[in-house]
Amino acid sequence: MSTSLLRPLVLTMGDPAGIGPEIVVKALRERPDLLGQVVVAGDVPTLRRALSLGAHEPRADALMLAQIGTLASLPGVPVGCMAVVQACALVQPVAWGDIGAQAGRAAAECIEFAARAALRREARAVVTAPIHKESLAAAGVPHPGHTELLQALAAEHAGVPVTAMPVRMMLSSPGLSTVLVSIHMSLRQALDAVTTARVLQTIETTHTHFQRLGHPRARIAVAGLNPHSGEGGLFGREEIEVIAPAVAEARKAGIDASGPHAPDTVFMRARQGDFDVVVAMYHYQGLIPVKLLGLEHGVNTTLGLPFVRTSPDHGTAFDLAGTGRASAASLLAAIDAAMQATG
Amino acid sequence: MSTSLLRPLVLTMGDPAGIGPEIVVKALRERPDLLGQVVVAGDVPTLRRALSLGAHEPRADALMLAQIGTLASLPGVPVGCMAVVQACALVQPVAWGDIGAQAGRAAAECIEFAARAALRREARAVVTAPIHKESLAAAGVPHPGHTELLQALAAEHAGVPVTAMPVRMMLSSPGLSTVLVSIHMSLRQALDAVTTARVLQTIETTHTHFQRLGHPRARIAVAGLNPHSGEGGLFGREEIEVIAPAVAEARKAGIDASGPHAPDTVFMRARQGDFDVVVAMYHYQGLIPVKLLGLEHGVNTTLGLPFVRTSPDHGTAFDLAGTGRASAASLLAAIDAAMQATG
Repeated sequence: MSTSLLRPLVLTMGDPAGIGPEIVVKALRERPDLLGQVVVAGDVPTLRRALSLGAHEPRADALMLAQIGTLASLPGVPVGCMAVVQACALVQPVAWGDIGAQAGRAAAECIEFAARAALRREARAVVTAPIHKESLAAAGVPHPGHTELLQALAAEHAGVPVTAMPVRMMLSSPGLSTVLVSIHMSLRQALDAVTTARVLQTIETTHTHFQRLGHPRARIAVAGLNPHSGEGGLFGREEIEVIAPAVAEARKAGIDASGPHAPDTVFMRARQGDFDVVVAMYHYQGLIPVKLLGLEHGVNTTLGLPFVRTSPDHGTAFDLAGTGRASAASLLAAIDAAMQATG
Repeated sequence: MSTSLLRPLVLTMGDPAGIGPEIVVKALRERPDLLGQVVVAGDVPTLRRALSLGAHEPRADALMLAQIGTLASLPGVPVGCMAVVQACALVQPVAWGDIGAQAGRAAAECIEFAARAALRREARAVVTAPIHKESLAAAGVPHPGHTELLQALAAEHAGVPVTAMPVRMMLSSPGLSTVLVSIHMSLRQALDAVTTARVLQTIETTHTHFQRLGHPRARIAVAGLNPHSGEGGLFGREEIEVIAPAVAEARKAGIDASGPHAPDTVFMRARQGDFDVVVAMYHYQGLIPVKLLGLEHGVNTTLGLPFVRTSPDHGTAFDLAGTGRASAASLLAAIDAAMQATG
């Protein structure tokens, strides 16, 4: 057994007002085989409330909560118990669906706990339940989402500026993976972020990720940006001036990159097996096809970090929070992906 | 029988170097029932070349070409013949796959012939085979595509400026229709085109189109623009400042519009039956989901013209031109949609 199998996977509870805590509980109820390998970083009372939600369901009694002080205590947790570290200062649940600083701060503290454990190599991988970006902002967290917060923590740990720790978001559904050149910014800012350096960095980060997974020459398709990929320059020049040079540079470095490809067909071609992954020029260019092709099992992976981090491909779903109806399918897919990448 | 059934549908051959002529022939071979109702606007030698492509196929002999001078001559065409009007000056085929002024000019002349016939109410509807925008530009045509050229011809016929003849592109695949706020411009220009006036005009044009089809209160979903629809203003303010006011204005006018909806789920919701049509903020926001959900049978409809115009949802496919392997499915879907809309 490799050492990675002995280290626990840390699962954050996400925003306490959202569906995070209840899908964490649901995932571990559905898959008790995970209990000995997972520690939840969260707020104990909030997770107890989540446990009570499914109290009427079959097998509900089968899951209990065991609070532990450190990850190293996982092996002592009784069989059938969900191991929880109190990873934030919050010690009473916030109202479901409430946006606010208290919820945002708790969510951020859990992420920080998980990231630091992974950076110290005490955790095998990190899987994060959804957070709410407005609550995060209300708490004064200077990062718009998970990806940027994890990047900042990893850069700090390595003692380098964040610019030396380039990260990218990869979204995957069965049969289709896409890596985004930019994520949490307006579409107008995202267009400014389509530079040769940034596109090339995205291709390189993608290539390195696949190499680490044991795939030395991933076929990386790079999407165009404008209608008809600019139609030879008639509808925009980014394809000619920005994207094609990045692809050429990557190929010079021995990376199997190609493009720019027409964005309306490249995702289907990838799904049919022509490519292993598509580099998308902005958030929705990649997100819409991945969601259309498999919403239930979407997984988000952060590339470029010194540890494996995945998350489900959905948000806090405040309208569902507290109903117990939210599906744990995408969270379980994220856990499985993290296990596989570190197996 | 209504008068519309007596008037022929005019089908343009598209760019003579592309798959247009051969899919026109293939469509009429597959559906001989259409022969008495369709006149092809094209170049006779180019269409003869297209006829020769499938000469080895079963039923190939069944289709012959009959050149006629005007649409009114269609009833005199012998059974089993494809009626063709020589609608352009080109009188010999250009090489397959060649981009150039000659091909662009021929394609434009056929479109002009078809549009003028429809504007004079001699044609029941117009269906256009694909053209190549670089060839169109090489020919000096001051319009980037079909939509803008048809708009200019319709405005000229009505004696109004083009601004008084707002048109929009609707893309449909089985179970999903989307109308685009803008089409043939760079993504950067498309962002500038997301104004309250233009979004409102798109909603109104969509509403009117569905009314004409006998659907008095179409449920029109309006998509957001930025990641997470701006996440309350954190990632862009167009949702708050531009899109929501357009939706509110439309609702005041009695239109069943809603939004802005998250662009990553609104298309799935429409497909599931929550909405009749989605208004998309830019070309690929609408195009990618429609193509992913039904490439083979995509249809493009121009809304806002004084006549019905549809086209297949694919390009000239120069790599396939001359092989006879291109599918006529989307063109046939476009013909059927035009017939239905004028039936």
